[in-house]
Amino acid sequence: MAVPTAPMITLTTDFGSKDPWVAAMKGVLCSIAPDAPLTDLSHDIAPQNVLEGALFLAAAIPYFPAGTIHLVVVDPGVGTNRKPIVVQCAGQYIVCPDNGILTVLEQSHPVEAVHHIKNKKYRLPACSATFHGRDIFAPAAAHLARGKKMSSFGPALKEHAHITVPEATLDAENQLHGEVIHVDHFGNCITNIREAMLDDHADYRVQVAAQTLSPIHRTYADVPPGTPLALFGSTGQLEIAASMSNAAENLDLHQGAPVTLFRPTVSRKGK
Amino acid sequence: MAVPTAPMITLTTDFGSKDPWVAAMKGVLCSIAPDAPLTDLSHDIAPQNVLEGALFLAAAIPYFPAGTIHLVVVDPGVGTNRKPIVVQCAGQYIVCPDNGILTVLEQSHPVEAVHHIKNKKYRLPACSATFHGRDIFAPAAAHLARGKKMSSFGPALKEHAHITVPEATLDAENQLHGEVIHVDHFGNCITNIREAMLDDHADYRVQVAAQTLSPIHRTYADVPPGTPLALFGSTGQLEIAASMSNAAENLDLHQGAPVTLFRPTVSRKGK
Amino acid sequence: MAVPTAPMITLTTDFGSKDPWVAAMKGVLCSIAPDAPLTDLSHDIAPQNVLEGALFLAAAIPYFPAGTIHLVVVDPGVGTNRKPIVVQCAGQYIVCPDNGILTVLEQSHPVEAVHHIKNKKYRLPACSATFHGRDIFAPAAAHLARGKKMSSFGPALKEHAHITVPEATLDAENQLHGEVIHVDHFGNCITNIREAMLDDHADYRVQVAAQTLSPIHRTYADVPPGTPLALFGSTGQLEIAASMSNAAENLDLHQGAPVTLFRPTVSRKGK
Repeated sequence: MAVPTAPMITLTTDFGSKDPWVAAMKGVLCSIAPDAPLTDLSHDIAPQNVLEGALFLAAAIPYFPAGTIHLVVVDPGVGTNRKPIVVQCAGQYIVCPDNGILTVLEQSHPVEAVHHIKNKKYRLPACSATFHGRDIFAPAAAHLARGKKMSSFGPALKEHAHITVPEATLDAENQLHGEVIHVDHFGNCITNIREAMLDDHADYRVQVAAQTLSPIHRTYADVPPGTPLALFGSTGQLEIAASMSNAAENLDLHQGAPVTLFRPTVSRKGK
Repeated sequence: MAVPTAPMITLTTDFGSKDPWVAAMKGVLCSIAPDAPLTDLSHDIAPQNVLEGALFLAAAIPYFPAGTIHLVVVDPGVGTNRKPIVVQCAGQYIVCPDNGILTVLEQSHPVEAVHHIKNKKYRLPACSATFHGRDIFAPAAAHLARGKKMSSFGPALKEHAHITVPEATLDAENQLHGEVIHVDHFGNCITNIREAMLDDHADYRVQVAAQTLSPIHRTYADVPPGTPLALFGSTGQLEIAASMSNAAENLDLHQGAPVTLFRPTVSRKGK
Repeated sequence: MAVPTAPMITLTTDFGSKDPWVAAMKGVLCSIAPDAPLTDLSHDIAPQNVLEGALFLAAAIPYFPAGTIHLVVVDPGVGTNRKPIVVQCAGQYIVCPDNGILTVLEQSHPVEAVHHIKNKKYRLPACSATFHGRDIFAPAAAHLARGKKMSSFGPALKEHAHITVPEATLDAENQLHGEVIHVDHFGNCITNIREAMLDDHADYRVQVAAQTLSPIHRTYADVPPGTPLALFGSTGQLEIAASMSNAAENLDLHQGAPVTLFRPTVSRKGK
């Protein structure tokens, strides 16, 4: 089996699917790096939502092999003094604006190096003020795929941006107070309460909306269709779901909705 | 022209496009099988809708070449005792949960072999209860692309699951009673009445909603814009459409809406 | 680095993402040209909207390298006497119905050659009346990728179709009257007033909805979040946007909404 001639370049944006913006970036990528396979991760990050992008990357990038190049453009600050950067993390490369979109990924995979993309040699000749995805980030990703070193693009940076990610807190009663941080396509409501925060979860109960859910289940089909349930999902985070149905709609849950995990008094006495 | 170094892997899911689930599967695929080209078929199968997935596969898979590997994850039963399987059909491979999603394809292309995916060597080391697409199906598809035989994954199965697909029925009056089984992106309403069920269709009439449509046309632009019409579409199925418009919206048609095809009395006498 | 074994084939359609139509075309492409990398540009051109497709192609195709093959299927006239064609433009190939979808691209990149696709040898054996994307256009694109010459498909055409594209007009008062021609995913409203029509844009004002916007800004973040602004976007066209927000929703703008660019009297006197 042949070794691939160039590493894969993935694309993640908030550009949606009806406009020519993704297409223009792909044209730039394959003009510069015709051998690099291209693959879309998502173009439906919510517009300008850096936190959603950060959660996305943390759940996706760790599954890719070393050397993969991720072109990530969620860029509300395009044309301002926010820096274009190339980052090495998990042995892979991320090309993106320096706006904190790696904050969640960094919690499990510390950043290895960050370089400022300054070298105009690796930009399109005519650089717009409103579309750096096409004019700066795509060319940089393609030149990386052709073997250019990070240092070719500009100087190493000692600091880079971070965003605030809501964290669950433990109160004096030993209850965990978290919130819904992402509602997925199925209406599953993913929270910031992580399995690793608990000793065990045999006797925990989850309070969300006006419901108390217990016990914590293993998978969606553990309850009858339509029934809401709590489980620890595939990213190790507490999730409010509904078997064969849409928990977000059924329980009117949105990003930011409070979720509390507690031990019932009786159970605690019993231990 | 070089022979491709690995077969293509396609992806079909109900995961939508905004979450990291498809991306995580792609990461797993290219970590294990970096030479296999990846291509998306659809991630917008309606959530948990195995029948929609079955109709989709029957209209798509026959056009692919032998050896193609299709990763298909519409999996409401994830984590239960439904089996993960790899199927050989039309000289191609389908990796999916055993939930009947091949039922429609099998009507034209009989299944050649089915193996249970049991060998833990070809799973991710940490297998979740809620995301077998990433932890079981993607690794199996990637190992197939690297040349592993079906028998490596587990024992052959003599039986596999099927779903009930609504079929058109012929009454004593020689009328065909069918229904809308899929509304496409254009609002074309595809029915389960197949061209092969008719001797000819010169003098047939179609009754749907409060309309009688006749004759059966050849293509959309055969009638003025906005006009509803009946035709046999590209899959050989009777379709209710509207020229340059959306028949489903105009006629308030949904999956399950009854459609009847009959011969008018006068015309029958004339024969 | 190895030379790619076959040119890239891109796909642009109005087919949406839930139906098997795109998948069937990909099956045909990789059955005939297994070495050609496939990449999606968009499947969300508005149904039957040839003008939207024309604007899309003009903003995307110029970024691709010579030799790229673009399969473009927005085809309300499928099955009528509109011709299937293969076009050479910008050193690339476009395979599409002859319905004017290249009109905007041709303004900057004159068409180099057009051939009628007539040779039945390069169609699927069973050609439907309603899905030429699968039966005529995909096979032609794949045979091009395998090295077939344009002349193999059929005779050169001296004329091909064009559509009317709304153009901005200059009145006696030196005011430019244009309109919104595309609302993008972010709600940015792109007009047909081009930067090249102006001498400078230091003192212009833009009237749209009940708002007067001035000055013309450089990028979105030049104004506080939520504020509407006018700027020349990445395609050189005047754009009505709103920082971190959706201008189309905020100002109730749609395709066709009038936009006027004028010089204020005081400023004009001052010159």
